[in-house]
Amino acid sequence: MKKIVISTGGGDAPGLNAVIYAVVHSCYRRGWEVYGSRSGYGGLMNVDEMIRLTLKDVEGIYATGGTILGSTNKGNPFSKPVENLAGEIQIVDISDKILRNFNRMKFDCHIAIGGDGSLEIAHRFAQKGMPVIGVPKTIDNDLMATSRTFGFDTAVATATDAIDKLHSTAKSHDRVMVVEVMGRDSGWIALYSGISGGADVILIPEIPFDIEQVCDKIADNALHDKHYAIVVVAEGAVTSDGKAFNRGSGELGREEVILGGVGEWVANEIRKRTDKDTRSLVLGHLQRGGTPTTFDRLLALRFGAAAVRMIEQRTFDHMVALSNSRMIAVPIAEAIMARKKVNLDDDKVLTAREIGICLGDSGIEMPIS
Amino acid sequence: MKKIVISTGGGDAPGLNAVIYAVVHSCYRRGWEVYGSRSGYGGLMNVDEMIRLTLKDVEGIYATGGTILGSTNKGNPFSKPVENLAGEIQIVDISDKILRNFNRMKFDCHIAIGGDGSLEIAHRFAQKGMPVIGVPKTIDNDLMATSRTFGFDTAVATATDAIDKLHSTAKSHDRVMVVEVMGRDSGWIALYSGISGGADVILIPEIPFDIEQVCDKIADNALHDKHYAIVVVAEGAVTSDGKAFNRGSGELGREEVILGGVGEWVANEIRKRTDKDTRSLVLGHLQRGGTPTTFDRLLALRFGAAAVRMIEQRTFDHMVALSNSRMIAVPIAEAIMARKKVNLDDDKVLTAREIGICLGDSGIEMPIS
Amino acid sequence: MKKIVISTGGGDAPGLNAVIYAVVHSCYRRGWEVYGSRSGYGGLMNVDEMIRLTLKDVEGIYATGGTILGSTNKGNPFSKPVENLAGEIQIVDISDKILRNFNRMKFDCHIAIGGDGSLEIAHRFAQKGMPVIGVPKTIDNDLMATSRTFGFDTAVATATDAIDKLHSTAKSHDRVMVVEVMGRDSGWIALYSGISGGADVILIPEIPFDIEQVCDKIADNALHDKHYAIVVVAEGAVTSDGKAFNRGSGELGREEVILGGVGEWVANEIRKRTDKDTRSLVLGHLQRGGTPTTFDRLLALRFGAAAVRMIEQRTFDHMVALSNSRMIAVPIAEAIMARKKVNLDDDKVLTAREIGICLGDSGIEMPIS
Amino acid sequence: MKKIVISTGGGDAPGLNAVIYAVVHSCYRRGWEVYGSRSGYGGLMNVDEMIRLTLKDVEGIYATGGTILGSTNKGNPFSKPVENLAGEIQIVDISDKILRNFNRMKFDCHIAIGGDGSLEIAHRFAQKGMPVIGVPKTIDNDLMATSRTFGFDTAVATATDAIDKLHSTAKSHDRVMVVEVMGRDSGWIALYSGISGGADVILIPEIPFDIEQVCDKIADNALHDKHYAIVVVAEGAVTSDGKAFNRGSGELGREEVILGGVGEWVANEIRKRTDKDTRSLVLGHLQRGGTPTTFDRLLALRFGAAAVRMIEQRTFDHMVALSNSRMIAVPIAEAIMARKKVNLDDDKVLTAREIGICLGDSGIEMPIS
Repeated sequence: MKKIVISTGGGDAPGLNAVIYAVVHSCYRRGWEVYGSRSGYGGLMNVDEMIRLTLKDVEGIYATGGTILGSTNKGNPFSKPVENLAGEIQIVDISDKILRNFNRMKFDCHIAIGGDGSLEIAHRFAQKGMPVIGVPKTIDNDLMATSRTFGFDTAVATATDAIDKLHSTAKSHDRVMVVEVMGRDSGWIALYSGISGGADVILIPEIPFDIEQVCDKIADNALHDKHYAIVVVAEGAVTSDGKAFNRGSGELGREEVILGGVGEWVANEIRKRTDKDTRSLVLGHLQRGGTPTTFDRLLALRFGAAAVRMIEQRTFDHMVALSNSRMIAVPIAEAIMARKKVNLDDDKVLTAREIGICLGDSGIEMPIS
Repeated sequence: MKKIVISTGGGDAPGLNAVIYAVVHSCYRRGWEVYGSRSGYGGLMNVDEMIRLTLKDVEGIYATGGTILGSTNKGNPFSKPVENLAGEIQIVDISDKILRNFNRMKFDCHIAIGGDGSLEIAHRFAQKGMPVIGVPKTIDNDLMATSRTFGFDTAVATATDAIDKLHSTAKSHDRVMVVEVMGRDSGWIALYSGISGGADVILIPEIPFDIEQVCDKIADNALHDKHYAIVVVAEGAVTSDGKAFNRGSGELGREEVILGGVGEWVANEIRKRTDKDTRSLVLGHLQRGGTPTTFDRLLALRFGAAAVRMIEQRTFDHMVALSNSRMIAVPIAEAIMARKKVNLDDDKVLTAREIGICLGDSGIEMPIS
Repeated sequence: MKKIVISTGGGDAPGLNAVIYAVVHSCYRRGWEVYGSRSGYGGLMNVDEMIRLTLKDVEGIYATGGTILGSTNKGNPFSKPVENLAGEIQIVDISDKILRNFNRMKFDCHIAIGGDGSLEIAHRFAQKGMPVIGVPKTIDNDLMATSRTFGFDTAVATATDAIDKLHSTAKSHDRVMVVEVMGRDSGWIALYSGISGGADVILIPEIPFDIEQVCDKIADNALHDKHYAIVVVAEGAVTSDGKAFNRGSGELGREEVILGGVGEWVANEIRKRTDKDTRSLVLGHLQRGGTPTTFDRLLALRFGAAAVRMIEQRTFDHMVALSNSRMIAVPIAEAIMARKKVNLDDDKVLTAREIGICLGDSGIEMPIS
Repeated sequence: MKKIVISTGGGDAPGLNAVIYAVVHSCYRRGWEVYGSRSGYGGLMNVDEMIRLTLKDVEGIYATGGTILGSTNKGNPFSKPVENLAGEIQIVDISDKILRNFNRMKFDCHIAIGGDGSLEIAHRFAQKGMPVIGVPKTIDNDLMATSRTFGFDTAVATATDAIDKLHSTAKSHDRVMVVEVMGRDSGWIALYSGISGGADVILIPEIPFDIEQVCDKIADNALHDKHYAIVVVAEGAVTSDGKAFNRGSGELGREEVILGGVGEWVANEIRKRTDKDTRSLVLGHLQRGGTPTTFDRLLALRFGAAAVRMIEQRTFDHMVALSNSRMIAVPIAEAIMARKKVNLDDDKVLTAREIGICLGDSGIEMPIS
């Protein structure tokens, strides 16, 4: 019999509960006990935040958004701000206390579901001797180590649904609608939802855009008797002449940082330059919520089941990943470093150009591969 | 045989196409011809903008958002800005020209689908002798003359779906989520979607809110081990101490007008006063788009069919309306004046208070009716 | 302080949980306690089946299908089959025991949510002295006493969504698709979903159909270059020459009862008579499940809140109902008797005929009202 | 300038129109003309069935189900039944005529979107000298040559949505719900939707099932206080003692063929053997209809764009396919032969077992990989 503790950390991604569901069921089959640590490491700091998870507790949660464990950020255990008696804030390292609690409760493994921040902390605990298995969570789908992460498909579905809704209004009113979607460093959500939603323009961090190219595309639409346009912008998109936006990348070396979201800026410029009635919308947190899609449920369930198999194989300090339709284990330390950006010769980029979508760049003829 | 011309004007509301569908089918049954005037009165100004509508042309459109006729505002025909030879803008009245075209094309009736602006223009044409039937369109459901308008149910469904999505994230992260929905002058969308979406707070123009009451409700949640909250705000909500917001009502007599949307202001105040992690979201045009719900399709189809019956009965200068599940005809002049506001003793308001929703007012015990 | 017990009985209808949610919240406001009796009268037969309901227990349930109390039919307490020691089944009346338990637990009121069967039982308990409030539940929307019941809008939405899905296939393959929807005695679901879904034919129990009229309509479609058709059939539809179907009404006086569903029979006849590729589908239980629509959530919440107000007013042996947008109380005994059938001069019937939908009857010219 | 003709053949799969959309746009970029042949080879048999496809014609169709070209089976051109003057049916080969028409209209390439039947015909035309590019279409996702086909994700989403809906009713009423989904020869749809929908039992053609194992699982549920169950059955599932079903595989060597669908049979057996209230439902054509999911739109658009690139590269008699996230070309002749069945050591099968889903087999301990 083994005792497993599971935690969720960082931002929301539909599918977190499905991972928990699979872990609890897979452990049940083996006669193991599962405990949930609330609010990240909360349950390992304070035993009152630790809850026993039975089959009954996880009934039906594979289909729900959010996480039953909560993921309020209670800070990094290796450098946690604590108020001392004098009322001053001190940074303390409480990792030893957490490790002691982990051992005292006789846990055999910690399954940490989280983004790069949470996984890095998990890796540091692994180095201190805690048997840790990671499950990657990033709604942006930008981890090199795994071909897909859960939550992304749901975010793209929500964004595409919003674009679909805006289409009818844009068309009826000869309007330009600018939709800002998530993606600070990578344009995956914008690219997927923009192509699927029939966007005219898609702007992503990987391809700095020229607003004149965008306006040219909108003007070109009119030649085909299409007097409206849909522009999808990743929040981290930047201009080719060096403008970044404060909800955007904040990347060093940018000459100019504009206050306000990039979507609003793009909408204002289009309005000024084309005289078209132009509106903008920020999808924001809608993309992180809701019932996970079939794809995300299935992937998250597979991640959870594979994580439990990894305990048996004792491949600790590793993270579960999807590679060529198979579950594999990759060292956490490696996994969290390499980010996956949209590559200009990716087939999706090629498809976008071929079906006439403007990507904001100088319109260089794409190579017909 | 009769010849009918139909037009759509003003903002988008899911169901416009269903009205057109029903008009075309109902006329077809009677052997009448239907023409569509594009962009409001466009087809009556310029014959190139007039299109013949057959059964084939309207196939499947009952289920689509937007309007196949377009509703770009080409201005009020009674006071249209026109550029003269000297490049100056002059206001001219082209209503006579439109009436002449209407007669020259031998139309028997004009079915005008539109909001109060469009209906008022329709009424003025009726006074000039054009046989006009109105079909009311307001996504806010705030017309006194008809118990429901199409588009409202779809807007509420979209808002409720968004609130549902935000719930999981709010709960997982112990957050306050503020959602700003449509409703400049009336709180119907906020009230319906807020109750249906399990909101903790609903702020509407009809009940000026005290931000302290809002914060009290959020604090109260914690006592029931609920560490998150959903706040739904109509864009026209105002504070009890006289603040209005620039996406809000702009009502005279307000002491103070705050720049920016009311949702963002409410979120900032909650964050400041409660220290809760608080985010805001503006749903905007999402609420006007998309496939109409079953309810809206059915209501719009009934409106269209009833409008055609009114032609037979020659009840011109009247508008179709729903009253006690029946279609009735009301004089346009009357209909456009009376707006329906949320009444404090409406059963929905009562229900909201009874199930513990804060409406932002001073917490006076509601009368148990 | 009062103690309230609530129960749910009979078939599923989306919104049951929303009623429970509103009752628990409305009672909480008044400082009252609420208990749930599982499986209908289960908790009043056996105290182990009685559960305390707090705000925490009902968190989020307004948006879920089914009922947290279960509604497995444990039989009519006034004539319950019980196995005696000799292994024989005897019918016994355990209503006195239930009443005794109700009094022993010091309940002040029983809120019974249920269909006509459950409400009739509730009424008999009321006559024996139990303070009872009824909440009507019929997914078919066929109660005379209330203008709408919850669950109906969701069922119609599910049916319309299915019809929408079948449209694309029907059209691509020049097919006739026959969809059988719920409605043993009344055609409301078929009528609403059929009109909203753009059906060509709608067959309902209230209008016995002539299969030749149906085939004529399908042939007529081809003249307008429409080579497919959608036929929506209520499960209780019957033919004009006296055929009923075994999933149908079983009405007395019918000359002939056909084994199998009416949908399959209609599909077979169309295939035989028109040579069209024809398929049929039975929606069945899909219509009773799923997340309630906004409309159903709101109505159910209003019912729950109004039921609690009725306790205060001591209007026992009454049922909550919706009339002209207001909550009213009607005597249970009256309410359960009068059923609402589709009336031939209902505006929805008229609309269906006007937009060219065949209702299976002899094609008599409708009166243009 | 090139002239391309495109056709769609066989059963419906959401995404067909997205392929057409991408082909038309990709050709437009190159200055090529695209024509659509209606009803499979209809336009190549009879020029009246050939339509010009412009950007305007395909506006918005990437988001619609069905196919704008129709895919009514007009028969195999190599062995087409034709009625001669004497009224007898003769099988004739009209492929030469079709090839002649193709050449007379000066087409440069035929893009054939279809299942194995249509692709085999396309291959035979390629052997006769017609430049052909294939685009694979199978909603069952069972082609070896491509890791995914469009339509499958939508079918799975529809099936999962139905299972979600049935859950609430099953649970409220302590019922067993049996859902029969598509999959004559392979269990992909059942496996994906069953896992994602939280099924208790999944029965697929690849794993002959023992009904006693199914009943054991249902009994086992009760031990965890779960008194309901969801059983997902692929239409081609067979029993381990040699029963096949007439909507099932019809495979040779089966000892016994049962009339009626497998879902109904399974439901009846469960009812008989466990005394549980058990219902069954056949999803049927619902799975082929509706708006394609984001995934299917994106994949179909990529297929279309890649098919046009293949024309430039003159890789005729090849089919576009997805392999490791890249578009590749595979010879049609090879592609249509190899079918992909569910493999017992597939990670999805493993996951199903680990999270406690019964697959109907003898319960042999799975190998923990």
